[in-house]
Parts: sequence; C-alpha cells; structure tokens
Amino acid sequence: MKTIYEFGPGRAEGDGTWKELLGGKGAGLAEMCRLGLPVPPGFTIPTTVCPRYYASGGKVPADVMAGARKAIARLEKELGRGFGRPERPLLVSVRSGAAVSMPGMMDTVLNLGLSAACVEGLAKLSGNRRFALDARRRFIQMFGDVVAGVDHDAFEDVLAAAKREAGTDLDTGLDEAALERVIAKYLEAYRAHTGQPFPEDPWEQLERSIAAVFGSWESDRAVKYRKIHGITNLGGTAVNVQAMVFGNLGARSGTGVAFTRDPSTGENVFYGEFLMNAQGEDVVAGIRTPEPIADLAKHLPKALTELMRIRTLLERHYRDIQDIEFTIEEEKLYMLQTRRGKRTAAAAVKVAHDLANEGRITREEAVSRVEPTQLDQLLHPSFDPAARRRVIATGRPASPGAVTGKVVFTAEEAEKRAAAGDAVILVRNETSPEDIGGMHAAQGILTATGGMTSHAAVVARGMGKCCVAGAGTVRIDYDAERFTAGDVVVKAGDVISLDGTAGEVLLGAVPTKPAVVTKEFDTLLGWADGIRRLGVRTNADTPRDAEVAYRYGAEGIGLCRTEHMFFDGDRITAVREMILAEAKEARDAALAKLLPMQRQDFVGIFKEMKGKPVTIRLLDPPLHEFLPHEPEQVRTVAESLGLPEGVVRDRARRLHEMNPMLGHRGCRLGITFPEIYEMQVRAIYEAAAAEAKAKRPVRPEVMIPLVGTRKELAILRERLTKVAQEVLAKAKANVPLVFGTMIEVPRAALQAEHVAHEAEFFSFGTNDLTQMTFGYSRDDAGSFLPAYVEQGILPEDPFQSLDQDGVGELIRMAVERGRRTRPGLKVGICGEHGGDPKSIAFCHRAGLDYVSCSPYRVPVARLAAAHAAIAERAAAKAGSTKPAKAKAKARGAKAPAKPKAAKAKAAAKPVAKARR
Amino acid sequence: MKTIYEFGPGRAEGDGTWKELLGGKGAGLAEMCRLGLPVPPGFTIPTTVCPRYYASGGKVPADVMAGARKAIARLEKELGRGFGRPERPLLVSVRSGAAVSMPGMMDTVLNLGLSAACVEGLAKLSGNRRFALDARRRFIQMFGDVVAGVDHDAFEDVLAAAKREAGTDLDTGLDEAALERVIAKYLEAYRAHTGQPFPEDPWEQLERSIAAVFGSWESDRAVKYRKIHGITNLGGTAVNVQAMVFGNLGARSGTGVAFTRDPSTGENVFYGEFLMNAQGEDVVAGIRTPEPIADLAKHLPKALTELMRIRTLLERHYRDIQDIEFTIEEEKLYMLQTRRGKRTAAAAVKVAHDLANEGRITREEAVSRVEPTQLDQLLHPSFDPAARRRVIATGRPASPGAVTGKVVFTAEEAEKRAAAGDAVILVRNETSPEDIGGMHAAQGILTATGGMTSHAAVVARGMGKCCVAGAGTVRIDYDAERFTAGDVVVKAGDVISLDGTAGEVLLGAVPTKPAVVTKEFDTLLGWADGIRRLGVRTNADTPRDAEVAYRYGAEGIGLCRTEHMFFDGDRITAVREMILAEAKEARDAALAKLLPMQRQDFVGIFKEMKGKPVTIRLLDPPLHEFLPHEPEQVRTVAESLGLPEGVVRDRARRLHEMNPMLGHRGCRLGITFPEIYEMQVRAIYEAAAAEAKAKRPVRPEVMIPLVGTRKELAILRERLTKVAQEVLAKAKANVPLVFGTMIEVPRAALQAEHVAHEAEFFSFGTNDLTQMTFGYSRDDAGSFLPAYVEQGILPEDPFQSLDQDGVGELIRMAVERGRRTRPGLKVGICGEHGGDPKSIAFCHRAGLDYVSCSPYRVPVARLAAAHAAIAERAAAKAGSTKPAKAKAKARGAKAPAKPKAAKAKAAAKPVAKARR
Repeated sequence: MKTIYEFGPGRAEGDGTWKELLGGKGAGLAEMCRLGLPVPPGFTIPTTVCPRYYASGGKVPADVMAGARKAIARLEKELGRGFGRPERPLLVSVRSGAAVSMPGMMDTVLNLGLSAACVEGLAKLSGNRRFALDARRRFIQMFGDVVAGVDHDAFEDVLAAAKREAGTDLDTGLDEAALERVIAKYLEAYRAHTGQPFPEDPWEQLERSIAAVFGSWESDRAVKYRKIHGITNLGGTAVNVQAMVFGNLGARSGTGVAFTRDPSTGENVFYGEFLMNAQGEDVVAGIRTPEPIADLAKHLPKALTELMRIRTLLERHYRDIQDIEFTIEEEKLYMLQTRRGKRTAAAAVKVAHDLANEGRITREEAVSRVEPTQLDQLLHPSFDPAARRRVIATGRPASPGAVTGKVVFTAEEAEKRAAAGDAVILVRNETSPEDIGGMHAAQGILTATGGMTSHAAVVARGMGKCCVAGAGTVRIDYDAERFTAGDVVVKAGDVISLDGTAGEVLLGAVPTKPAVVTKEFDTLLGWADGIRRLGVRTNADTPRDAEVAYRYGAEGIGLCRTEHMFFDGDRITAVREMILAEAKEARDAALAKLLPMQRQDFVGIFKEMKGKPVTIRLLDPPLHEFLPHEPEQVRTVAESLGLPEGVVRDRARRLHEMNPMLGHRGCRLGITFPEIYEMQVRAIYEAAAAEAKAKRPVRPEVMIPLVGTRKELAILRERLTKVAQEVLAKAKANVPLVFGTMIEVPRAALQAEHVAHEAEFFSFGTNDLTQMTFGYSRDDAGSFLPAYVEQGILPEDPFQSLDQDGVGELIRMAVERGRRTRPGLKVGICGEHGGDPKSIAFCHRAGLDYVSCSPYRVPVARLAAAHAAIAERAAAKAGSTKPAKAKAKARGAKAPAKPKAAKAKAAAKPVAKARR
Repeated sequence: MKTIYEFGPGRAEGDGTWKELLGGKGAGLAEMCRLGLPVPPGFTIPTTVCPRYYASGGKVPADVMAGARKAIARLEKELGRGFGRPERPLLVSVRSGAAVSMPGMMDTVLNLGLSAACVEGLAKLSGNRRFALDARRRFIQMFGDVVAGVDHDAFEDVLAAAKREAGTDLDTGLDEAALERVIAKYLEAYRAHTGQPFPEDPWEQLERSIAAVFGSWESDRAVKYRKIHGITNLGGTAVNVQAMVFGNLGARSGTGVAFTRDPSTGENVFYGEFLMNAQGEDVVAGIRTPEPIADLAKHLPKALTELMRIRTLLERHYRDIQDIEFTIEEEKLYMLQTRRGKRTAAAAVKVAHDLANEGRITREEAVSRVEPTQLDQLLHPSFDPAARRRVIATGRPASPGAVTGKVVFTAEEAEKRAAAGDAVILVRNETSPEDIGGMHAAQGILTATGGMTSHAAVVARGMGKCCVAGAGTVRIDYDAERFTAGDVVVKAGDVISLDGTAGEVLLGAVPTKPAVVTKEFDTLLGWADGIRRLGVRTNADTPRDAEVAYRYGAEGIGLCRTEHMFFDGDRITAVREMILAEAKEARDAALAKLLPMQRQDFVGIFKEMKGKPVTIRLLDPPLHEFLPHEPEQVRTVAESLGLPEGVVRDRARRLHEMNPMLGHRGCRLGITFPEIYEMQVRAIYEAAAAEAKAKRPVRPEVMIPLVGTRKELAILRERLTKVAQEVLAKAKANVPLVFGTMIEVPRAALQAEHVAHEAEFFSFGTNDLTQMTFGYSRDDAGSFLPAYVEQGILPEDPFQSLDQDGVGELIRMAVERGRRTRPGLKVGICGEHGGDPKSIAFCHRAGLDYVSCSPYRVPVARLAAAHAAIAERAAAKAGSTKPAKAKAKARGAKAPAKPKAAKAKAAAKPVAKARR
C-alpha cells in the first residue's frame, strides 16, 4: 500500500478528485500542482494510514516513516536545503486534511525542523534574525501546545510578560533580545510541563507531529463537530507535510485567505483579506484585524495581479467558487490551499445561477449545487426595516440572519439556557473549536475580534447561523458577566438582536419581516421545477399559511389539519360543549355552532389556493385533548358551559387514556361519533359549493385519518359521500367528490390492496407510521433516542429523517399494493418528513406523486425533489445493469449517497494507479 | 332455483350433510327418512329463500308458495287427508331450522290447518273431541302469539280464568265445554288485539306462518344469540313444514326428547324424558314434570324398544351422540328430530374417548370431536350446579374459575388480609400494574369497568386467577368501602362469589366442586399430542405456575416475565431504590440486593421444569410502573428509602410518559441501563450453573423484549454473553447460551432477516404486535373496539383472537425472512393468543414451532394444535391443487374455517342435484 503521495509545481501523485484518499487539502494541493500553480513542494500521507495509526495504539507505522524520510530527502535535494541542517535548514509544515473540511478542528504544526542549531542558519538564509527567532518561538509554542500537550497559557503568560516588559501590545514589538529571553523561558516551560527537554531532533519532531495530527482526528471537539454535521462515513484524516514559506519575513511578505466570489452574497467580486508580515494562523486567530484583499494593491500590486489571475484560473477550472489560502514570501506568491468555498444560501443560489448564466455549468448542475437544507436560511425573516433599531455596535456581517435573544458569555451557558427553552446570543471575544456546542445552541454569535474568516464566522456560516464578527467597540468583562459598547452596558440575560447581513448589534428585540425571495432564487427553483418529478404540496391549516406556501410554489395543500381550527378563541367552548354532551342532540347543537366557523375556515383556504387541490384531514386527536385538566381550567369551562364542575371533571377523567397515541382518535372518532365528521364534511362542501357558484375554481379532497381496515373507510366514505351529495344537490353546485386516506397505521400499509378499493388517494402520515412501526412515542423517546443515535443503533432520529429500511419498507409495500388495486392511485406524504431532503429522495424513488411540507420548506422540497431526479438520472447514466429498484434500495442506505459513491471511486482509482 | 325439498319415510331430497341448505333440522329429517325411520312426511323450504324474503320486504316469494301448494297436494295424497278439508283435515307444523342450532330462538307453529270447520273432522278422525278442541285452542294461541303478534298474556289470562272456573290446575282438567268457551274467548282476544278476525283459510295460515318463521331470523333475541355465539356466516333459516303427529291423543300417546348418551357425563346410558298425552312444547315449557325415559317401559314398552333400536342405529350411523325428539301417536313412534347432541366438556371428552375405544371413530376423530375452548370448564373448579345462586351483577367472563371470598377494595388490603389467612376478592373500578401484588394475593378479581382485554383480565388470565371484568352495574364507593349492585349493598368484608366462566357475581358463598382431570381426558390429550406438530409451552412466572403447567403437559416455558417477580414483598423496595438511584453506583447497590432473590426465582422455576427449556424475558415495563404515584404511597416509599419525599415525587414525575406503551421500556432499558439486564442474566446463569452442578438438567433461554433493530440485539447479546460466560467460567459449569428476541414491534418483523443474525429464536409477542400494528392501546381500546366488532369492522376483538390478515401477515413475513437468514430458527408465540384455538391454528399454518400460553390453557393448546394438524391433513386430502400456503391464506379468513368449507360443499352439491 502506497503511503506517501508527493507533489510539487507541475507534478503530483494524485489530483483534485482524490479527496477520500488525500483529504481535501492534499487533493487541492495536488490539483494546483498539476495546474502549474506556485505551490511549495511536499507530500501527503493518505487517510488510509489513519486507521493503522489507531490500530497500532497510536504509533505512526514504520513503513510510513521510512517513506517520509525518503520524501524529505527528495525535498532537501529539490530545495537545496537540509532537514535539521544548521545552514540552509529545511522547515516544513504538518497539517491535517480530511475528505470533508472540518475547519479548525484538527492540529497543525508550522516551522517544524527549526531546532536550536538551525536558528542562526535560518537567520542568515532570510537575512532577518528577528524573523528566525520569532519562527523558533512560534514552533516551540505550537509543538508544545499541539504535540506535547503543554497548557496554552504556559506560553501565553511568558509572551504577555515579555510584551509588558517591552512596553508593547504587539508580538512585533519584541526585539531579538526579548525573543531570545522568551525562547529560553518557553524551553523551561516545556520541560516543566512535560518533564522532558524540548526535542531538537527534527525526525522526532516530524514523527510526533504526524502522530499528533492523526490523534486529533478523535479529539473531543473533532468528534463533536462530526456529530453535529452528521459526518459518519470517513475513516480518518490525511497528513500534509509541506516545505514552509514565510509570510512573516518582513514588509514584502504577507499571507491571506480569499474567496473567488463573495461567499456571503455570491456577487462576482474577489473577496478576502490579508495581513502583511504575518503567518497564516495570525489571520485565522483573529488577533490582528486583517485588511481587505483589494488593499493588497497598495502593498504588493504584482502579487495581487498574479493572485487575480490564479483566482480566475481556479474558478474556471473548478467551475465553482473557491476558498484559497496564499502566502507571499518576499513578493513571491505561493498557493497553500484551494477548496470548494463554503457559502451562505444566498450566495449558493446566486453563484449557481450566475455560473449557469455565464455558461460555466449547466442548469441541472446549478440546481444540484445548492443544498436544499441551506435554503432554510433564505426563507427566514429579516428585521423589519421600519422598526426602530438601536445600533450599539457594528462588526463584520459574517453570517446573515436576523435574530434576537438573551446574552450569554460561555458556550456552556448557551447550551444550558437553550435546553431550558431560551433563545440566546453567544457573546465572545473570539470563538474556539471548544465552543461548537454553544454556537449550535445559540440563535446567533457576536464576537469582539476576528474577521470574516475567523473561526466564529466560518463555523456560523457552515451552520447557517447568524453571526456578527469583530465588533471592535464591544468590550467583554467575563467575570462581571457583561459587555460595554460605547457607553451602553449589556448584562448577561439582557436581550439584544443581531443583524448578520448588516453586521449590526441592536439593543433589545426587533420585529422581523418575512424573507424576500430574489430573482435568482425564483429562477433557480424554476429550473428545479423543470427537473423534478415529485409534486410539492404544503401542510397548512390557515389561510395565512396557505398564502405563504402558495407564494413559495406549493402546488396544493397535502394536509389541512382541522383540529387546529378547533382551538381558536370562542370555538374551543363550542368544541367542549360538543365533547361534554352526553346525548347526540346536545352534541348536534354544539356542532351546529361550529359548522359556520369551519365553513369560513375552508372558504379562506380555498381562496388562497386558487383552485389547487386542498386535502382536508378530518378530526384526528382524541377528544380529551380539547378538555381542560387543571382544576382552575375545569372551573372556567364548567362556568362557561353552565355545567357542574364535577360533571366536567368526571367526563374528562372518563376520557383519559393510558396511551392516547393509540387511543380513541382519528377515524375511530368518525365511526363512533358520526355527527362530528358529518359536520366537517358539510362545512367543506358548503364552502366549496359557495366558491364554485362564485365561479372560483375549488378542489377539496377529504382525507380520513388513522384507517387500519378497509371497512372503516368504506363506512365513513359512504356516510360522508351522502352528506356531501346532499349539500351539493341543495346548492346546485358541481364539485367533484374525492375521498382518500392517511396511511399511518402499519396495518393500513399491509392491507393497502384492500384499502385502495375505498381510497382515491393515499397520504403517508409518517409521524404516526414511524411511531407505530418502531413502537416509539415521539413524546417520550427523548429518554432513549439520543443514546440510540450515539450508539449507532439508529443512524439518526427517525422522526427527523425517514427510516428507509423499516418504515420505508411499509411505504414501498403500500404503494405497490395500493396501485395493484387502483393503478392511478395518487400517493403522497404529509408527515414532517415531507420537508426533509433525504426523505424526499426516498419518496421520489418509492414512486410517490407528491410530498407535502410546512410552507417555509416548500422551496426546500422543490429543490430536493429536483436533486432526487438528478441523482436518479446520474445512476441510470452510470449504466449499472442492476434493476432500478435494487439500486434505489442500495442507495437507500443511511450514509449520504454522494460521499459513498465518491469513496468507491476514490478507493478504486489510486490503487489502480499505484499498481502501474 | 329449487325452493321445495320434500321428504318422507324412505326418501328425501337431500341428506344429513345438507345443513347449510336445509338447516340442521331439515337435514336431520332428510337423513332419518333415508335411513327408513318413521318420520312424518313434509318438506323443507331452504335457507336460500330467507334472503329473498328479506329482499322482498317481508314477503314469501310467489314461486315458493306455489311450490308449497304442490308439496301440500302431494302430502294430501300420500296421507289421504285434505288441507282445510272439514273431514280428514291435514294438519302441519311449521318450524324454523338454521344450519347451526339456535335453541328456542326462532318460531314454531303447530296444528296449522286446524280451522273452525275442521275441528269436528279431527274429532272424528281421532275419536277424541276434547283433543281436537285442545288442538284448536293451541293453534289459535300459537298462531296469535307467533304470527299475529298478539300479547301472550291475552291468551294466558283466558286459560287461567277457565282453569280457575273449572277448579283445576292443569290444562287437561278442562272439559270440552270449557275448551269451547276458551276457544271463543281466544278468537275474541285475537280480534281485539289485531283488529282482524282469526284467519280460517289454511293457505293464509301457512303463508303467514312461513313468513313469521323467516321473520324470526332477525328477531332481537335471535340476533343477540348469534352475536353472543359468534355466528356470523349464515344467510338465514330454513322452514320445515311437516304433517302433524299427536302425542296428546290420549293415554297411548306421548312425546319426549332424549340423548343417545348422557350429555352431562358422557356415560353410555340412554338419557331423556317424556310426557304422556302431551305435545312437544309441553316438555320444553316445563309446566308438567316429565318422566325419565326408562319409565316409558311402564307405559309403552314396545315403543321404548323401538326407540332403543333407533337410538343405537342413529348413534352408529352418525358416530356421535345424538339429541332426538320423538312423538308417540297411539303407540306408533315418530321421529321428529335428530341432531348432534350438545354436551358438557366432561361428556365431550368421555364420549369421544369411548367412541374411539368402541372402534366407532378413529382417535383422530375423537380428538377433533372435543372443542378446545370447552376444556376450560374442566380445568377450573366450578360451582356446584345444585347450589342456590343469587346473581347480583354480570360482567365479562374474563378469566374462568369459581371462587368465594371477602370483599376488599385495595391491593394493599388484599395482601394484608390474605397474609392473615383470609380468602379475599379484590374489587376495583379497574386494576393497574401497582395492584399486581393484591391481585396475586386475592382469590379472584372483580372490576366495574374494562373488558376481556383490560389489565385485570389479562393479568388474571396470566395468573390463572378467576376474574369478572366490567360488571357495569357495580358502583364502588372507595371512601365508604362498599359497592352497590342494583339495590344490593356489599361492604368490605362481606362474602361474595365470582363465576369467571359465566361472568357472574354472586352474593354469599357458593359451594364448589373441584376440577377433575379424568383418565379419559389424559388419554385423549395423549392422542392429541401424537397428532399435533406445534409444541406447547407455557407462560409462567413462578415455580407454582410452572408446576401447574408441567402437570398439564407444558413442554417448556415460552415466557417467564421477570418483572412480576419485582413486585413481591420487600423486593419492590429494592426495585424502587434501583430506579430512584441517580448514579450507577447506587443502582448497582440496589441491584446487588435483587440478584440473590432473582436467582432463587430461577432456581425454583428450573427445578419445576425438569430440564425443559425455560425462556426468560428480561425486564420489559417502563420503570415508572414500579414507582408509587399516590401521595400516600410516595410518603411510604420515601420513608422506606430514607429519601426526601420531594425526590421520590420528582423522579416519578420525570419518569412519567405520555404513551408508556411506546416509551422507555424493553430493550431500550437494557441499552440505557446496562446494569439491570446484566444483573438478570447473572441471576439466570448463576441459578442454571447451580442446577447443572447438582446434575439436574437445565435449559435457560434469554429473551430480549421490544427489539426493533438488529443492532440493539447485537449490543445486548454481546454484553450479556460476556456476563453469562463469566458466571459459567467461574462456576465451572456447562450450560448452553441461547439468546433470542421477542418480535413485537412491527419493524422487527419487517427486519427479521437482519434480526435473525443475532437471534437463535423468535417469539412473537402478539399483544404488543397487535397494539402497534393496529395502533390500538389495549388499555384504551374499550372505548371503540366493541363498536368496531358490532359494525363488522373487525370480525372480533383482535386481542382475543389474532388478526390473521394484518398482524398475521407480519408474522408470516417474519418467519419467512428470519428463516431465510437462519434456516433452523426456532419460532414461537407467547402473547395471549397462544391459548386461543383459532390463533393456534394460524400458528400451525404459519409454520411456528410452538405456542406458549397460561398454565391452565396448556391442555386447550395441545388439543387446538392437534385440530390444526387434522385440518391441514383434511385440506391436503381434499386434493386441492392450490399450494398449501395459498390455501392457508384462504382459510385464514375471519369466519371459522369449518362452516365455510361446509358451506362451499353444501352450496355446490344441491345445485348439481337439482339440475339432474
């Protein structure tokens, strides 16, 4: 097995597609070398070594180290330097790089090889002794921190003392003598903390650094990051060893990061920042505030010109926005990284749209470039521009959004308060990888230092979380739990708002207004509509929901829950009268009060949907859900109904159920209290008749919940058809009658062949179907589901993403059996899963006609449906001889489909090449 | 379509097998005619006419009446009489007769044709004018009552007055003049009540009587009877019209009913009774006390001899005990009916056994002659039938038995009084898991609410404890410690008795007689064992249960629930300590206390089972079931644990679940609290090791409940195998490790192919599987299930008899898929259905290895399993070319299999014959 993949200008053992093997960074370096870009030479130890490192109990395998020695020897020769040689020493960086980018999660060691003996050689070589001493200091600190586990503060305290002594705030304020003293104290601190002298043998440095990088793969924060991001299919990280170039060699040197387009808006402008006379970590650490990339023209115009050339070349080559790192050493530009640029949803949409319009990619590619889940960001509200805004500080608009929450100052507190149901804003000088959990829990993140590419900014964008970074006037006092911004004092628990698009910090809560959809967004979704096969409907219970969903492109309502209408204002009283009625007459009287209200609900919804189908589910929850249980409420209800308290209490108690989820609800109510469903159907068809007579198109569909047997549906359908026909005959209106059923009880799926005789459509209620197929109560599963996901018993929460193996099998079975009886059977899904892209892909493969999801997820579903269609075409093109169904099943596995396919490809290719 | 089937001595259009078409009575008459027995001639209008009667709105179809006219004409010719002719009038009886006997449920009219004009003719013909007048009186009364709907009392009052006037107590005490007056008053009463004169046209009489018989098929009492007896597959009744013979012609006439053997004991003695000078209804009416059949020798020895000859002939012909009706007219014997004799369970066993031993039937036939459900009666003590019973309330016969005890209203009180040596009856509105201890301590359980599948019913059956559930008129006042049932008040400490077989609550003590298991019973079950393929195990949680089951022939324990052991005495304290422990250490300490107790349980059970397999299910219910909820109980627990009350209350509240059935239970507990299952497995294998070392054979099988994924089982199996191996290694004992799983979550059935990798056996927990497949909570379904059965949505309560279409499909699927992975996979069922004969037949067809049921149902299951095997052979012999599986499926429909097959046969045959 090949363990070393070398690269250098114009040549590389691998290319940009070998991410699985070389990691993202290694593959990017290889590709850039092949493109002839200026890349410092080096080599990559592939990801396949990582498991061997763990299998051997944390040792770098001997064959790997032997390979590294040979590769270093070739580097020495190429560069005319020597590893550990006092004159012309070869220094290298050791960096991690997994197949999927995990920014800041794993370890890096720079300036490796800079042993005591080599400092003067480097001084001479660079003509800058201060630089050499600073590089030595940095190396000791980084190695000590990352490899030897020395407490970070041990070094920081020394440095801070030296700066105090020198009367300076900046590292650059330390002169050679001061740095020599710092180095001496660093070496003492190293020995004090490790009990060992600092290792001056460069081979020991190299081996231990490689080991540390592999070891960081399983560090707590890396594990947590992968968990949060659902990264489950990687075997480990690669290690990149590369000759050092120096951005901190003086005024003609610098370093920076950039995006080929604006990753926040997607605009076609070169976007980035740099620091003169700095090493890469200075930019990321956010200690000094970098300058915008355009200002590079003031310092090193030639380097900027070269960088602009490379920007264009890389974007055309990759046909996508790139995130690059560069270093300028004495005016010479070096490329240290290129990778797919992470971007906001807005940027993703705009870039994909623009690239397609520029002819760089096809429309189908454009559609597949935008992750459906990302759209969520765009569909969320922003602050009402008319609202009063009290801006107390301004920072960089690091990640868009408009959020309000209570101030917290630690990640732990953020997690705790969020778990308790509070919306919180995490306020930090800067964030670090340990803060990931708190960032995830918070509504938004505010940092006092750092820029657009600081840790906080990068992570927040990845999470689609609002972030304002580097708000310089914000001064945090962690101990006192407060911050000041100018003369405003904000304490923990105070409410602030963040405008991540403007980069503003606002005092108090600010009202929001709904998201504004851009032209590009509409265009791209239009392309998606042309690709997808699945219809997209919405779950909407009110005219307002219906209106939003229609605007977002819903092609109908897949689930209109009638019970939500029952809770409104004075209706609940009539509902309670209906429930508490002992005799049918009293119940009928209460229902007669509800009838006009329900009718009005439906009129409103029909109007908004402008003739698109509206699937109305008849009453589903058990009646006791509408009754009061607390003594105080019982009293109120008894009074309002003029009934003795005891009667209300007794009836409520009699209706109590041990397992309401499996109780007297859904069509079971329809069977035992016929008058309730009859009222509802009357309301539906009276509303529809009124619309029809007003010459407005209207398409109601009546949906019966919780059906488990054909007979239930047959009885209800016959009874309700009669009611509807009466209404329509009386109104002399012509509205087609459509009756269908939810499939949410496992038995209904098994019996679909029979049920389909009575149903013109099926709609999978996957919430309940998941509950019953697993035997999990969604209300109670919190006590064990997290442990189940953690222990790998379930790949993820089956209420969030459909269980394709178990619940999915019932769905496939029901579709197949239902259509056996009724070939034209229309089949949809209306559970929460209807808005989950992975579940939507499943629905596509299972041959459903539509998915239905909440209004704000309609665009997500449209895009996800297009992705599913594209994936199917791609699979068909891949020309596999397996029948489509088997393939769908194979793809239906838990891991995301694409990385898997990529893995197989990556695994196959290099081996073949290696054998040549 | 043929509408008239004639019969007479030596000839008949049909035979004894045509029950579906001719009804039981008609078929019996036809068969007797063919045997040459003396049967008055007549004809049968088949059951197929009944739906036509209803379809035409209650009219006898014209073609049927035309046929009847022709048949009557032939009778007139044969008998030399005339219908409605004053001299030598032909009189007929009109009787109902469905395919299944429904004694007393439908209508009969005798002496039809005896119009006013014919009375003197009959007087002359019979030489007995008083008889003729009496027959006329009876006819008017019966026709008026049955056909014209005249209030019964209208006639009875007249008769009573006449008897008072004549100074006699008996009808026979009325002379001719008195009878003439009675007749006149009857006719007046008839006109007064109907507004019409009594119809003297015999054709009108006939047509209206036929109509009345058809009409009685849908009478309230007939409908109710069919519902109670689960008769759902019949289309209607037949009508038998037959020439009258008279047992009331004088001293040389009489009438009687008899069984060819004693239907109560099964002894081979002729058993019956007769009345001299009487019509059939006099015997049934019970006004005069009949004489034992042997005494007929004193009156009409020749007739008795003839009857004895016919007895032997019929029994040999039918090869079964017959229930016959006869009339002797002037010393001439006429047979009016023969049918299969209904018998007690004891008689059924003895008769079947004896007939086989006599060589009349095969052993297989003997086995198939005893209905498995009947055995229940034999296995429980019963009340002495001679004892006086004062029934104060009626409920569902939830668990058989006959017990007497003092009333207690709480489980604690039950335990306390039982410990003090009292026999107690626990009376609750409904029971809950906290009542287990008290239920165990009580002789029997009475609940006011809940049905056959309520908690009380299920647990009681599991315990083999007598239970009457849902006695709706019982109103409990817990505070006053008393209940009322109608106007009876029963206080705590009062004695009541429960008849769990009849569902009756009796005031005071009632003497019982013990269950006697006879030699014949053992022999017959031995024959059944030789026939059946299914194994029969038992559900037993205690050594006592195990011992009973072993005695009844259990071949192992299919379900040993460990949680019931947790409720006993001081264990519940340790259990509560374990649950309330916040840290693992405290939990471990509590578990350490439980370990020796559990070990002792298992030792006891292993001993009783003498090396037969014992399947032990690890803890299943959610932990909160063990915690107290009432304030008083919380206080007690807090004290006994030395914890603040608040802690106990809080923890209990935190453990509360919305839908405990779908909550944190079963293997979910095993995954999240590993130490609980580890303790249990340790206890099992320590017990097994001790037995093995004492050279006693022992076969434990560990069963994991509520598995839904392969991984759950894999994790637990690995963990628990390690524990077991440690124990066995330490004890140096050799006990095989067997791990298996319950299949009770639909997903487990769907995923059986994967789950089988980790399971050496499957056991279907059909209670939970039914709950989840239907989405019915067993605790709550009482609010709609009865309506579902009533409206024909479900053929019966799916918790009582397995839903073969839905749940059954999952079972078939799981068996097939499981064995695909592991061909030798052992598969059983351990839900309540394991003791239900219809469900057992399904299990046989589905290819299961065994069923497991409560100890007292083991003999039932052995017999039912044999029936299933016999049915399969019969189907194979029927030579159908359909593959066995398709047939099984076809037979798996809701209606009982046999009548259906019979129906198909009956429907086919007569048509063929009719065409000849």
